[in-house]
Amino acid sequence: MGRVTARRPVRRITADGETSRPDSLAVEEPMEIRVGGRPLAVTMRTPGNDIDLAHGFLLTEGVIGSRQDISVARYCDGVDELGRNTYNVLDVTLAAGVAPPAASVERNFYTTSSCGVCGKASLDSVKLSSRYSPATDTAAVTTAVLANLPDKLREAQKVFDSTGGLHAAGLFTTAGELLVAREDVGRHNAVDKAIGWAVQVSRVPLTGCVLMVSGRASFELVQKAVMAGIPVLAAVSAPSSLAVELAAEAGVTVVGFLRGATMNVYSRGDRVLAQPPDGH
Amino acid sequence: MGRVTARRPVRRITADGETSRPDSLAVEEPMEIRVGGRPLAVTMRTPGNDIDLAHGFLLTEGVIGSRQDISVARYCDGVDELGRNTYNVLDVTLAAGVAPPAASVERNFYTTSSCGVCGKASLDSVKLSSRYSPATDTAAVTTAVLANLPDKLREAQKVFDSTGGLHAAGLFTTAGELLVAREDVGRHNAVDKAIGWAVQVSRVPLTGCVLMVSGRASFELVQKAVMAGIPVLAAVSAPSSLAVELAAEAGVTVVGFLRGATMNVYSRGDRVLAQPPDGH
Repeated sequence: MGRVTARRPVRRITADGETSRPDSLAVEEPMEIRVGGRPLAVTMRTPGNDIDLAHGFLLTEGVIGSRQDISVARYCDGVDELGRNTYNVLDVTLAAGVAPPAASVERNFYTTSSCGVCGKASLDSVKLSSRYSPATDTAAVTTAVLANLPDKLREAQKVFDSTGGLHAAGLFTTAGELLVAREDVGRHNAVDKAIGWAVQVSRVPLTGCVLMVSGRASFELVQKAVMAGIPVLAAVSAPSSLAVELAAEAGVTVVGFLRGATMNVYSRGDRVLAQPPDGH
Repeated sequence: MGRVTARRPVRRITADGETSRPDSLAVEEPMEIRVGGRPLAVTMRTPGNDIDLAHGFLLTEGVIGSRQDISVARYCDGVDELGRNTYNVLDVTLAAGVAPPAASVERNFYTTSSCGVCGKASLDSVKLSSRYSPATDTAAVTTAVLANLPDKLREAQKVFDSTGGLHAAGLFTTAGELLVAREDVGRHNAVDKAIGWAVQVSRVPLTGCVLMVSGRASFELVQKAVMAGIPVLAAVSAPSSLAVELAAEAGVTVVGFLRGATMNVYSRGDRVLAQPPDGH
């Protein structure tokens, strides 16, 4: 740890003139995830909660279904030019009987067997590969609870204020209780870290939970919600068309532009109960 | 075209009540890039300017160095269930003598030959693989010109106002003249589309140019700037630590938090000349 932010000198220019001062930047470093010693994927991430990240990545990519599918996850002995462990390579040993992933799991949702890559094909493969189905989740959440989630997520972010460069993802109960919050320079990594925490405490599938993200709701974030069995995805910014399509098909509620009491509900609106913030 | 935005019904909730209405969403669809018929990468992108995207991707990944390295780029004949071309598969034929890329060019900057993935290794491989060197570019840009770039980029975005979900990238001269602006749901794709336009008009390396992006400056965006020979990268939001490290080593000027007359300069500040917006 201690590498979530780095100090760098910066020349600050305003209409009144300029100053030089140190500034905090979000740290970004590559992490390689290996399975059984074989390189599987490299992701640019903010160091910290790497074990969470590996668990979440392997779950949302369909390699594992629960913590029992992993026997050991440990840092590999990669060293830098000074002989220090870089803590940038994580090797995961799968439990006996768990099938190892294909050569490169990255992007394996989009099989390239035919000339037919299209939204529809992607949607179908996600549905087929998920072990959990958010569609039947009977969770409901009030607009009053949703309205408070952005602030609660922001409060849980220790780093954001000093760098302005980190995405956040939080898992909440439908009562608005924060289960876990994770941050990263990468939107997907923040979500994988939060889901990976849930994997490790055996809280997957994440039935009855709301995944709140600081940015927008892309296809891949809905995909991750489906893979983890999360019924509600809320985002501060816009969803994409394919994100809403997948959410509608897979039965995930998508709330976008969630800013205080104002929000848009794009799919499975039956789970969102209108209730003014003051309870009237 | 005509698929940059999609209309979806949305339930809009405010403190005053709720309404149902159609809303515009940014379209996101997978595009597969093939080289000589062989699948190389799949990216989630906003349809439109796909030829630009392919050219930019292949340049920033080091497969090509100029437009002469590509003989043909055309949509493959993938069709959906109704027999319509999906326009989601693009096949590129390299010119005679151009070496085809390795099996998967995606993430090939991070070789996995040793247990030593770390920031340093990534930095070295980027330097080695780039055909162009922004370090020696003698371009200079005034703070007055920089201060106007965010507004100019926003003006060039036709879609943003209706969806709020698109990232933008613009290439400008150091006099502030817009060369090209491109948008995408993905930050990297917007940059690849802008660079790909430059490849096609034989304006690579992009000496004396400023790349302006609507979001933050990640390692991968600096990497793309280096690969295209761009001396100045300006971003509305924060850079990451590794982005600044690479920029400092490769001689790219990074300007972050560019908001009107206020900005932070993180590397190669010699290219940024202080000049109040009103010319005094």
